[in-house]
Amino acid sequence: MWHSGLLIGRFQPFHLGHLFAVKYALGKVATLYIIVGSAEKSHQTDNPFTAGERIRMIKAALEEASIDCRRVMIIPLPDASAHSLWVASVKSMVPKFDVVFSNDPLTRRLFQEENVEVLDIPFHERSTYSATEVRRRMLSGEAWEELVPRAVAVIISEIKGVERLRQLSDKK
Amino acid sequence: MWHSGLLIGRFQPFHLGHLFAVKYALGKVATLYIIVGSAEKSHQTDNPFTAGERIRMIKAALEEASIDCRRVMIIPLPDASAHSLWVASVKSMVPKFDVVFSNDPLTRRLFQEENVEVLDIPFHERSTYSATEVRRRMLSGEAWEELVPRAVAVIISEIKGVERLRQLSDKK
Amino acid sequence: MWHSGLLIGRFQPFHLGHLFAVKYALGKVATLYIIVGSAEKSHQTDNPFTAGERIRMIKAALEEASIDCRRVMIIPLPDASAHSLWVASVKSMVPKFDVVFSNDPLTRRLFQEENVEVLDIPFHERSTYSATEVRRRMLSGEAWEELVPRAVAVIISEIKGVERLRQLSDKK
Amino acid sequence: MWHSGLLIGRFQPFHLGHLFAVKYALGKVATLYIIVGSAEKSHQTDNPFTAGERIRMIKAALEEASIDCRRVMIIPLPDASAHSLWVASVKSMVPKFDVVFSNDPLTRRLFQEENVEVLDIPFHERSTYSATEVRRRMLSGEAWEELVPRAVAVIISEIKGVERLRQLSDKK
Amino acid sequence: MWHSGLLIGRFQPFHLGHLFAVKYALGKVATLYIIVGSAEKSHQTDNPFTAGERIRMIKAALEEASIDCRRVMIIPLPDASAHSLWVASVKSMVPKFDVVFSNDPLTRRLFQEENVEVLDIPFHERSTYSATEVRRRMLSGEAWEELVPRAVAVIISEIKGVERLRQLSDKK
Amino acid sequence: MWHSGLLIGRFQPFHLGHLFAVKYALGKVATLYIIVGSAEKSHQTDNPFTAGERIRMIKAALEEASIDCRRVMIIPLPDASAHSLWVASVKSMVPKFDVVFSNDPLTRRLFQEENVEVLDIPFHERSTYSATEVRRRMLSGEAWEELVPRAVAVIISEIKGVERLRQLSDKK
Repeated sequence: MWHSGLLIGRFQPFHLGHLFAVKYALGKVATLYIIVGSAEKSHQTDNPFTAGERIRMIKAALEEASIDCRRVMIIPLPDASAHSLWVASVKSMVPKFDVVFSNDPLTRRLFQEENVEVLDIPFHERSTYSATEVRRRMLSGEAWEELVPRAVAVIISEIKGVERLRQLSDKK
Repeated sequence: MWHSGLLIGRFQPFHLGHLFAVKYALGKVATLYIIVGSAEKSHQTDNPFTAGERIRMIKAALEEASIDCRRVMIIPLPDASAHSLWVASVKSMVPKFDVVFSNDPLTRRLFQEENVEVLDIPFHERSTYSATEVRRRMLSGEAWEELVPRAVAVIISEIKGVERLRQLSDKK
Repeated sequence: MWHSGLLIGRFQPFHLGHLFAVKYALGKVATLYIIVGSAEKSHQTDNPFTAGERIRMIKAALEEASIDCRRVMIIPLPDASAHSLWVASVKSMVPKFDVVFSNDPLTRRLFQEENVEVLDIPFHERSTYSATEVRRRMLSGEAWEELVPRAVAVIISEIKGVERLRQLSDKK
Repeated sequence: MWHSGLLIGRFQPFHLGHLFAVKYALGKVATLYIIVGSAEKSHQTDNPFTAGERIRMIKAALEEASIDCRRVMIIPLPDASAHSLWVASVKSMVPKFDVVFSNDPLTRRLFQEENVEVLDIPFHERSTYSATEVRRRMLSGEAWEELVPRAVAVIISEIKGVERLRQLSDKK
Repeated sequence: MWHSGLLIGRFQPFHLGHLFAVKYALGKVATLYIIVGSAEKSHQTDNPFTAGERIRMIKAALEEASIDCRRVMIIPLPDASAHSLWVASVKSMVPKFDVVFSNDPLTRRLFQEENVEVLDIPFHERSTYSATEVRRRMLSGEAWEELVPRAVAVIISEIKGVERLRQLSDKK
Repeated sequence: MWHSGLLIGRFQPFHLGHLFAVKYALGKVATLYIIVGSAEKSHQTDNPFTAGERIRMIKAALEEASIDCRRVMIIPLPDASAHSLWVASVKSMVPKFDVVFSNDPLTRRLFQEENVEVLDIPFHERSTYSATEVRRRMLSGEAWEELVPRAVAVIISEIKGVERLRQLSDKK
């Protein structure tokens, strides 16, 4: 068991696959830093939610799942101005960590080149539990709520997230 | 009692006055977002520590003080490129909040102009419990440890923070 | 009638649809701020002209149309570093305004979330009077001059705008 | 007489010396572009006002002085990221110009190195009619209104500018 | 013969067509500045290598080809924040030059608008000797080594460049 | 003897102390990368020269001193947006290096924290051979030429560097 690890994602929005990944990572590390990446991005069709909204979703989902929040910190990070600066930027913004959980090729590569251990996350039903699929269903009017924790669906409803996504997609 | 509030500081480093402020704020709000400002700054004589190091200090100090970490989130925020964008930047990076705790004139002014309620923090012994005083004592070799939570002193010692500050001050 | 309003566009280049929109807006507000968006962009196939060139085109077109320039200000604004900062950026760069004229989904959404009133512009013959169509015709050698105010055609000719656009599109 | 010229300043705030300079420049050029420099700066003790507020002050002062606004454009420009890019930035953001009015050594030097003609402004009573002096009087409670056009004093009063400046200066 | 000239490219990676261009340019100028453009970009499928790696490749290729390195300087330049600032940025970062060698439409246009002479490079077998083709072959497993100087192939092998490119392309 | 090393400075301007340092470093490494730091800065009283001008000075001084330019590369680097990103930025922009020569406390600290070996430069007559002293003499009209290589004095004279520095210092 490692002392601490990073789980990096954009969480647009946080879905059940992400929740699975958090639980998986908490089986490997004592403390987990959930990095909300591309934190400055919002109001785009593939990045509809602000970092603040995403943090709120994650917090609510973890509490709903009875995960011990004392073992988790949620930290928003803007994109670096260059890929070659990304790892240094993460290291400066996050307490010391031992391992990174990620399936993203770029993230994996950048940390590996800096000799940080990177672990795969065994996603189950990856094509279904994906943020792209959630957003696609939101736009097409299909049932997206079943792909996200209930608490997340409540927040998206409260902030009128589907309406926002549809308005942003409007080519009018 | 408000639902949630911000406590904004640079925490270079987190000292007993800050801890007092956290406790005070937790008497007023259910959830407190501690904003680690100027998060991109480090390795300067008045900003010696990285955001990651400051987060670690705050986390350790809160645990040592038996504060319920489920009521607190610690969020690093870089400076905005212009003062007029600062409040919008904070709002996008932090979950919804009702009130701001700050004694800083600029912070107070910027939030007040956006109609956010700002509360004073009743600092006790402000001239002693200040980060400027802590850094001054670190440089002069005086006793600085008594101004910070014990857990913070331990971390600063572990990361050789005083040595870093002195080296940065070296005019050689 | 409102006191003042914004008309936001990129104006690459300013065409007869834009001129119609200006006249429409001047029927609703006493003072109109024409915001030249993406002001830093130029020398791209979909943003060929500098902000300075675009301002010059707009000024000339308004004078040609005998619009009272004392009721209009033309203000260039660079893109914000994040969508969530755009409205704050506009508010800091432009005198106080009451209403925004825009058909762009993102612009509409961002101002609406900040509780600014947004009005549709009743574009006539939208598919014809579009900057995309003007640039397409410039590249294909079709008659584009009929889509823009005469004064704009003169300026584009003077600065050799069509030649620039073609050179930029050259895949060689 | 030149076709067009630039008058560059920060206008924090616009005072009677500036008004004199505008009139002087309008005696030399047909069209004057008033550049509101450091447009992104505000809420600092030496840059208290936003670009939008400064534009509003200038517009009101010119109208009060019965200056023909059709001969003037007011254009806000953020600082460039490097001095060596400043002239290129100005040229891209402003319609073509023939001459620059400025007494600032850096501005003069940068334009001269690019072979742009730079003219002195014959300031009268320079030590009195300076923005630094206006702000000093605002802070000390002395009579500052006599240094600015009446219309500017009205706007500063309306936006509570003196209160803002004092709050920003508050070392508390 | 000119005194000095620029050869601008991204060199992702440096191939035999580039080497030909260097030799061609050295037939026209006494001193050649090789500008490594988009220097901040790396770890992207169309920009896999860092500026440092590209500089190393170029240096090694020139030495292998017995080119007199005293007549050449290799200078990395990040992209400017706007096309309209690019020429000013280059001029500030590079010693004075008389001519630019480039086939890129945007580069040619930007320098020509600033009255800098731009010369074509007579590429031979352009479709074969292109960085796009080199990267395509790296991904498909075809023979790419024959398109680059031997010294470049050695460096790419040493830094495991093909492995990096493949990992970045991995859609997993 | 190391394979390669960095010598980092701002070189505003390059003086005899710098030349001594280059020779010293070339006694320790086979290849020396001379990093022209704060490359984006110019036209300031403590950073009067552009990176391009500084590169030209260094090149001329090395040739005058009969230093083998094949063992040296001169590389301009802009400041990073945060100290914590500086080492990563250098590593991405420069070929692999083994050691850093620097007497600057911040530079030393940042590289040491990344486990890069840092060596002192045994400056002789440090208070005399300093760029600050050169600029001071330029402003006061004292003999500054004796502090810099002859070739540097020639270039400064040619670009009218003293005149620029004085104009920038002009408080008028």
